Amino acid sequence: MEDPPPPPEPEPEHHPRPVRFGILGCASIARKVARAIGLVPGATIAAVGSRSESKARRFISENGLDGAAVRAHGSYETLLDDPGVDAVYAPLPTGLHARWAAAAAARGKHVLLEKPAAPCAADLDAILAACDAAGVQFMDGTMLMHHPRTHEMRNIIADKKDFGDVRMINSVLSFPVSDDFLENDIRVKPELDGLGALGDIGWYCVRAILWAVGYELPTTVAALPGSVTKNDAGVVLACGASMHWAGSKVVATFTCSFLASLAMDLTVVGTNGTTLRVTDFVIPLEESSAAFSVAPPEELAVVVVANDLPQEALMVQEFARLVRSVRDDGGRPEGMWPAIARKTQAVVDAVKASIDKGCEPIEIMHGLNN
Amino acid sequence: MEDPPPPPEPEPEHHPRPVRFGILGCASIARKVARAIGLVPGATIAAVGSRSESKARRFISENGLDGAAVRAHGSYETLLDDPGVDAVYAPLPTGLHARWAAAAAARGKHVLLEKPAAPCAADLDAILAACDAAGVQFMDGTMLMHHPRTHEMRNIIADKKDFGDVRMINSVLSFPVSDDFLENDIRVKPELDGLGALGDIGWYCVRAILWAVGYELPTTVAALPGSVTKNDAGVVLACGASMHWAGSKVVATFTCSFLASLAMDLTVVGTNGTTLRVTDFVIPLEESSAAFSVAPPEELAVVVVANDLPQEALMVQEFARLVRSVRDDGGRPEGMWPAIARKTQAVVDAVKASIDKGCEPIEIMHGLNN
Repeated sequence: MEDPPPPPEPEPEHHPRPVRFGILGCASIARKVARAIGLVPGATIAAVGSRSESKARRFISENGLDGAAVRAHGSYETLLDDPGVDAVYAPLPTGLHARWAAAAAARGKHVLLEKPAAPCAADLDAILAACDAAGVQFMDGTMLMHHPRTHEMRNIIADKKDFGDVRMINSVLSFPVSDDFLENDIRVKPELDGLGALGDIGWYCVRAILWAVGYELPTTVAALPGSVTKNDAGVVLACGASMHWAGSKVVATFTCSFLASLAMDLTVVGTNGTTLRVTDFVIPLEESSAAFSVAPPEELAVVVVANDLPQEALMVQEFARLVRSVRDDGGRPEGMWPAIARKTQAVVDAVKASIDKGCEPIEIMHGLNN
Repeated sequence: MEDPPPPPEPEPEHHPRPVRFGILGCASIARKVARAIGLVPGATIAAVGSRSESKARRFISENGLDGAAVRAHGSYETLLDDPGVDAVYAPLPTGLHARWAAAAAARGKHVLLEKPAAPCAADLDAILAACDAAGVQFMDGTMLMHHPRTHEMRNIIADKKDFGDVRMINSVLSFPVSDDFLENDIRVKPELDGLGALGDIGWYCVRAILWAVGYELPTTVAALPGSVTKNDAGVVLACGASMHWAGSKVVATFTCSFLASLAMDLTVVGTNGTTLRVTDFVIPLEESSAAFSVAPPEELAVVVVANDLPQEALMVQEFARLVRSVRDDGGRPEGMWPAIARKTQAVVDAVKASIDKGCEPIEIMHGLNN
């Protein structure tokens, strides 16, 4: 009688090497994401790059990072050449995205890019082509996509029995800005963030609308006559648009503004008796839970969804997971993230084109380039 | 020394003679308003007129009215000739409004007319001219105008300090209808209610938008490309529009549909920190109170407004008060009600014109006729 086989050796405890982020630029949103990276076990900040080393050092100390462990780079170039950086988080002005995100990809860095992804689809295509050629992960910084509330709401909308088909979508998104912002913020400067409010907040409206229809591109997009306010440099401060999908009965509208008080509303009406409403869809009012309401005719039920990490950390967590899969396990980059960034950009571009053509409806081509 | 003057005779207790309503037509909405008339001390139902006396009798018995006191008329004509009728409530198909509301006014009856007021402004002008010539009160049946919540919300919006100026208004209004409705209801028949969903529910969106801007007519109205669904007879089942006011930064949008689940949303965003939201603005979910929310950035505060009578009874009460003022006290008819009906009609007409012209923007003339 033979002995039973020996028990297998216990596997060593799995400690995945964290994804080492380089922060490319020190915009104020970078503080939030730097904190988020610190909250995620599988992610760490390896370096900060700015146009001067002293600015990078200041960012490191002001954000409580370990000055001994985090390298300060005095240029974007040297950060991209840092071999200890796996991925960049790039909160640069939108006008600089194409140059630096593509350069990062060309050096083999995965790219987490602030939104709007680019000033136009051609720029984004260059970035995505560079990521594709290098085999690195691309994701844009639309944090709301990573909140569990968003997934819960998706389940509601996808329920053919209780929700039916989507028929009407509306989003109203605004926040009031200061006089200083209107004078000096990069989001009102044509060469830095030429899309203005359309890029900064309209992006979220467009993304939410696409999300609600399962990312099917609309066929026609039209800016709303009279909805557009621009500054003296021609940058959009407020606008609105409607869109529709040929052959469907879906109609979507949004208005967004730097010139009104805070509203972050999304309403989705279906055919079968449930209406979904959320009034803080971009940034939940609470950091550890977020609510939405569903209303059958009789009552308004509020659903509260808890989140263990703030949504920006959930974004970093998911991005880091995808990066590790490529870096450590020979996985392919996840194609969903570049695809929905590209669709969002296509619709934002169409709204911009309609604005530029006096609110003429713009057909979106459903070809390979869109 | 003289005796003091005798104390004055006690005044007889004031029992104003109730306003005697004739109900012109037995549409289902008439049941609700008949009940409302019964709830108002200063109003009573004197007569019901239908195309046949038996239908009028049936309405009387089915609605628990006193068959000995309420006269049944077998034609609209004889009801209008009834000298015991002070005012008509007319829930007729919209296509019949011009004829019968004008005829009622010509016979000295005050007119409470279901909405939409008319198929087009020319028809409404004929009605208003007849009311004006006869010196009778006109009011359309937009019940929400009479709920104390509406007045409370008006106070919020009018608060220049906390609300500031109105910047964005959105209304989403829909209710799901049955296959039978889509086949047979008067609201899908071109000759009866040619405005379809635009007249039946879009009317409320337009009214709410005008209400939010203090009844200033927009300069431009445009239907949303792709928002329009019509039935085979060309009647609108769903549509949407945007509007703006030249020289202002206000933009308003609405979508309305017979083909989606229940939504009755109105959102108004101002400049100074308060956003107003209501999700049942047309018919409050509760009969004795109604809520809205105001959101400064930090929190969402719900305001509940109690009402002592349902809003349809508050409408009857206000209409009856105005009628008594004219009938008993030599007062002039209140001009606000015809004026806002006319403005609502002008905007509804402009939406219809835009729909008919492939969603071209329509300028609204601000002349005497609008």
